[in-house]
Amino acid sequence: MPQTSLPAMRVQISPIQFSRLENTRKHWLDELANFLAFPAISALPSHYRDLEANAAWLVQHLSGIGLHHAQILPGINSGKPSVYADWLLRPDKPTLLVYGHYDVQPVDPVSSWHSPPFKATFRNNRVYARGASDDKGQLFLHLKAIESYLKTSRRLPVNVKVWIEGEEEIGSPTIHAFMKRYAGLLRADAALVSDTEMISPDCPSIIYGLRGSLNAELEIIGPKHDLHSGRFGGGVHNPLQALCEILSTFHDREGRIAIAGFYDNVKKDYYQLARHQAGCSCCALKEQQIIEKLGIGTPWGEPGYSPKARMTSRPALTINGLKGGYTGPGSKAVIPSKGAAKFSFRLVPDQTPQEVEWRLKRHLARYTPKTVKARLKIGQGSNPVLLPIEHPIMHAATRAIQSGWGKAPTLTRNGGTIPVVEEIQRRLNIPIVLMGFGLPDDAIHAPNESMSLSQFFRGVETSIHFLKEAGSI
Amino acid sequence: MPQTSLPAMRVQISPIQFSRLENTRKHWLDELANFLAFPAISALPSHYRDLEANAAWLVQHLSGIGLHHAQILPGINSGKPSVYADWLLRPDKPTLLVYGHYDVQPVDPVSSWHSPPFKATFRNNRVYARGASDDKGQLFLHLKAIESYLKTSRRLPVNVKVWIEGEEEIGSPTIHAFMKRYAGLLRADAALVSDTEMISPDCPSIIYGLRGSLNAELEIIGPKHDLHSGRFGGGVHNPLQALCEILSTFHDREGRIAIAGFYDNVKKDYYQLARHQAGCSCCALKEQQIIEKLGIGTPWGEPGYSPKARMTSRPALTINGLKGGYTGPGSKAVIPSKGAAKFSFRLVPDQTPQEVEWRLKRHLARYTPKTVKARLKIGQGSNPVLLPIEHPIMHAATRAIQSGWGKAPTLTRNGGTIPVVEEIQRRLNIPIVLMGFGLPDDAIHAPNESMSLSQFFRGVETSIHFLKEAGSI
Repeated sequence: MPQTSLPAMRVQISPIQFSRLENTRKHWLDELANFLAFPAISALPSHYRDLEANAAWLVQHLSGIGLHHAQILPGINSGKPSVYADWLLRPDKPTLLVYGHYDVQPVDPVSSWHSPPFKATFRNNRVYARGASDDKGQLFLHLKAIESYLKTSRRLPVNVKVWIEGEEEIGSPTIHAFMKRYAGLLRADAALVSDTEMISPDCPSIIYGLRGSLNAELEIIGPKHDLHSGRFGGGVHNPLQALCEILSTFHDREGRIAIAGFYDNVKKDYYQLARHQAGCSCCALKEQQIIEKLGIGTPWGEPGYSPKARMTSRPALTINGLKGGYTGPGSKAVIPSKGAAKFSFRLVPDQTPQEVEWRLKRHLARYTPKTVKARLKIGQGSNPVLLPIEHPIMHAATRAIQSGWGKAPTLTRNGGTIPVVEEIQRRLNIPIVLMGFGLPDDAIHAPNESMSLSQFFRGVETSIHFLKEAGSI
Repeated sequence: MPQTSLPAMRVQISPIQFSRLENTRKHWLDELANFLAFPAISALPSHYRDLEANAAWLVQHLSGIGLHHAQILPGINSGKPSVYADWLLRPDKPTLLVYGHYDVQPVDPVSSWHSPPFKATFRNNRVYARGASDDKGQLFLHLKAIESYLKTSRRLPVNVKVWIEGEEEIGSPTIHAFMKRYAGLLRADAALVSDTEMISPDCPSIIYGLRGSLNAELEIIGPKHDLHSGRFGGGVHNPLQALCEILSTFHDREGRIAIAGFYDNVKKDYYQLARHQAGCSCCALKEQQIIEKLGIGTPWGEPGYSPKARMTSRPALTINGLKGGYTGPGSKAVIPSKGAAKFSFRLVPDQTPQEVEWRLKRHLARYTPKTVKARLKIGQGSNPVLLPIEHPIMHAATRAIQSGWGKAPTLTRNGGTIPVVEEIQRRLNIPIVLMGFGLPDDAIHAPNESMSLSQFFRGVETSIHFLKEAGSI
């Protein structure tokens, strides 16, 4: 669909005022609906053309709001295309890299959606569509902040590079090669990533730490083929039993990870950092509500740490899946020939996936009995990220949220992993601001994803403040 | 299809001679092919009419060979119909109950069959069809032994009751109710069950012990729904981890079952009985070949017992299936809300399913942590069976095999469970002869099931000898 951009303002008004005009807001929601109409599902090869069309639409859009050099950055090694644009006319100012992604999750089960996932529907002061919150809506509000400057002041208070990825929802599989190729183009003084959520509308937050990850799959192989458990039971080491016996050595009785040396490289002062959030009563309340809602009332985990610390600032090892033998109705007298588990680590500074892989292999070599064979497959790994909370850009972000939200943000950590954040940090060696405007009830990755329009418009204003603050670091 | 029976012989010849006539053998194989043509798959409701048709065919057949009172015994509690017939004209002689089953296993995957599963195909001196060995072929050879008497001597050397079950392949689910109803009708002095295999053609055997069984399913439930393992990992007791931790308490490090008191009721002299087979070199060789063929070379199991004893005369606990979480390609960051395992015990005298169920529940109560919930489902249980090897009917069976096979049988045990054997023993309180003519390579329950015609005809002769010997106990 052809795009028409708002005209530049002839009368001098501020970017904030511009963003509050009824006409502006109406136009932006129309544009957002157009953006959300592309079924840019990166996981499904059948949607590759939709990704291309969406990327092309973005190039045109970025030009339309006044950015320069808008272009497709072709994917490397069959990666999905990224979109790039910049505005670099303030040599006196630092450069901010604004990151987002235009690809979205699949929409199954479609029948659970109350409105079509790729037709933006506005109700209850929310916009419903796949990508509304993750990440099109969040990304879009920063683009609208940029536009608010360019349509009023005709210039930005900071140099900007916009990079919009097309394969975040499949785990950014070609991110290494991509960053190697485009590191020069993307070079900046700081980065803004808006692909996270805040604790609640009353509790704006900035995430300063993410855990790293390491995925693995362990297959335990016993007899060449399934055996009758009546005939052979008791004389053959059952691979499912051996698998459970091995997996049960991963933790001690109290909840510590029992792999030798696993905690050796965990930063000693790391937990101290979590103090930043300890004083926030709304965070604590929200966390407690979540725990109650999920029915996980009985505490479990590493002794000596709070639930919040266990889930964010301490490492974890989770069995994600188990399979083997007969699992249908009734029973079957079988000793299966093999069984398998998928599991994953969450890592904290200064652990690395390489080090943990080595420790895991040593552990398995020690605990795998001779009666079975073990096959270990190591998947993607990602380093943990700790962002410099005392950096001027973090202070700039804090001031921006104070101005836009009327409340200072909580500094918090997140237990998850965003590969691109680690990659930006490692390749570009710059501080990253994780300023999220999503909310826990946006139903991201689920049917009926939505974003609150209040969050959206307050987000635009906060982003306008942030661009200004970022210019003064 | 209409049945025509062989005419009675006018010239006096022996039952053995009759069974060796070319005309007899040809006719029997035609009849067997007709019997095998019924797709009497008890597991599939769509085949219920085939079961009925097969049962009706059997009633006509049993009449045709000269048995009396041939009839359907309707199933109890929606059980599948059985077939019954008798010959009770020798009040001076004991009564032998001959048991078999006409129902068969499903035939999936059909594409792996070299000839249609329900069209008997004769090649390489074998008959190929579903049921050829398990159990139609084996059952049929006893019917042909009975016929050989009735067509020559006009009478049997022993009274006979024939009972042909229709739901053995689904675990005889209504056997309790059935036996309660028909115990009077089936009363006899001894039973012959031919639904097992011999060790090899050179190693005829009689099984004098079967293990009992108890099936169970354990579900471990954690959070109300799946959680993101990045966000919550380390702070929630993962139900898959808890499941593995619980299952790993089932055995000690050396392979003993570690449930308190589990071995208390295991008969002290039970292992001694296995000596009967210890001296049989062909058994030992065959067992070794199987172990090598299956690639289970590294010994495992209860210390102090041979592999054979572990698999037959000692109890066992096998995990039959494990499931939970994500098991597809790649990885998924999930803490599943639940996981489950199916497992089963094999029991030996004097253990009972009731006692072991109680011990299991006590064990789980002790080892299930408070951080998760456990749901235990107990399935069917069956008592172990130990048959009286010094009973005259066992000696009769030994003499019959010596005559028919030219070699004394090995007395052996089998680690499996045949619910009907326990039920006959318990309800009728009579000795049971487990005289099997199947072989390990008959591919029962698998594609291309077959039976050796040599085994079949030698089986008929052995059965003729056995009927005579049984008459003299």
